[in-house]
Amino acid sequence: MALALQQGQAILRAATAKARELGIAASVVVLDAAGHLKVFSRMDDAWLGSIDVAMKKAKTSVLFEMETQNVWEVCKPGAQAHGLETTNDGLVTFAGGIPLKTLGGELLGAIGVSGGQVSQDFEIASAGSAALPR
Amino acid sequence: MALALQQGQAILRAATAKARELGIAASVVVLDAAGHLKVFSRMDDAWLGSIDVAMKKAKTSVLFEMETQNVWEVCKPGAQAHGLETTNDGLVTFAGGIPLKTLGGELLGAIGVSGGQVSQDFEIASAGSAALPR
Amino acid sequence: MALALQQGQAILRAATAKARELGIAASVVVLDAAGHLKVFSRMDDAWLGSIDVAMKKAKTSVLFEMETQNVWEVCKPGAQAHGLETTNDGLVTFAGGIPLKTLGGELLGAIGVSGGQVSQDFEIASAGSAALPR
Amino acid sequence: MALALQQGQAILRAATAKARELGIAASVVVLDAAGHLKVFSRMDDAWLGSIDVAMKKAKTSVLFEMETQNVWEVCKPGAQAHGLETTNDGLVTFAGGIPLKTLGGELLGAIGVSGGQVSQDFEIASAGSAALPR
Repeated sequence: MALALQQGQAILRAATAKARELGIAASVVVLDAAGHLKVFSRMDDAWLGSIDVAMKKAKTSVLFEMETQNVWEVCKPGAQAHGLETTNDGLVTFAGGIPLKTLGGELLGAIGVSGGQVSQDFEIASAGSAALPR
Repeated sequence: MALALQQGQAILRAATAKARELGIAASVVVLDAAGHLKVFSRMDDAWLGSIDVAMKKAKTSVLFEMETQNVWEVCKPGAQAHGLETTNDGLVTFAGGIPLKTLGGELLGAIGVSGGQVSQDFEIASAGSAALPR
Repeated sequence: MALALQQGQAILRAATAKARELGIAASVVVLDAAGHLKVFSRMDDAWLGSIDVAMKKAKTSVLFEMETQNVWEVCKPGAQAHGLETTNDGLVTFAGGIPLKTLGGELLGAIGVSGGQVSQDFEIASAGSAALPR
Repeated sequence: MALALQQGQAILRAATAKARELGIAASVVVLDAAGHLKVFSRMDDAWLGSIDVAMKKAKTSVLFEMETQNVWEVCKPGAQAHGLETTNDGLVTFAGGIPLKTLGGELLGAIGVSGGQVSQDFEIASAGSAALPR
């Protein structure tokens, strides 16, 4: 099942609305289940650095089908896959990337958000993810 | 003068509407005047290859401040800057990239479209460009 | 507002003079607000490795609009954005990159310096930054 | 024998003066004999695309120790090294890159210029090259 443009746009709208509510200028990206770009927007005054961070968060969540902060548990110093974050052209392993799934658990893609404090990025990504029309 | 998110979204909407009218599934990208990603969307069933082509069209129009097909006149075999297309990580020099400018002629960014016949990509990019709110 | 060549050159001159005073051979780079190269010089006998370090320091300061050592506070082990330095093709998060801003606080670009001890790089970058004509 | 900063700066000044005389906004780069960046400046309003083109022109002249347009004679369709321009991360084979040599013929580096018509780029690079203090 493929992520539809209409779904991506709904996710983007919800995430952007939440960012505005928090007073954050964020880059928001939605990738499909193969990791390819579906929709993207960068709010006015967002850091330029947020583009790549948002992209890599969404990519990380697609590649390992989990929220980015959970990937860190696997790859942090001392963990079994320590250093994993240097693979795949760089993973981002703090919060702000969330996989998008069907009600049946099938992977549809992922959202990645960057621009605020990490807890704010997570809140924005969660709002986007929750708006996935199904 | 910076390209605003609201401007990017209006351009994206107009381009997508034109693509629907033509029955084409396209990737549409808007970059700012420095070549950084502002907004992007890939319509359902667009070729995966259209993502990078649209990106490189818009990039080409930002880098040389002209429509992509006009860059070809400069870099085609026998022209003065033959082979220019291998610089800047690859230019795309057929139609579908159009610079976005203020009424005063200042560069705001560029739109890039890929997905249909080249003439259709140009028509879609033109519709997007014409919708730039000023 | 765009960083002018004349501004970039004044910054470069001041940084180079400070480096000479300290007896350091440094690479000094000034990027514009979008992260594109404006002026660069490498002093005689500077390490070859200083070219990329200076570039990445300036880039880091443009991308996140802060001095490089302050980015480290955000991305060091245990901090909220741990590992951020692997994004954007590599950040440098020790001192020597400083954003350049107008009196009104608008980002104009950044200076990046590498070649000496980190505290010396910072002193050189500060001298360059202080010489920004406004 | 290494290209000195003072030599690079003299070359840059002469090239920039010639560009101003021609009414061209150009990127001008000087590389050392190993192809590493020595000095660079981008004049105000130069195309963003000129940064990479100037870099690749200078690189091409260092790599093959000849003016860029002469490299084309070797690598054009039908010539013995046809397609050579795709090596070394991309060569530029139209005029604007000129090797810098000592009176004894030893390679010191190269100048690369981009921003105007190709014949203008060549004129600017020639002015820079002629100003090499020896």
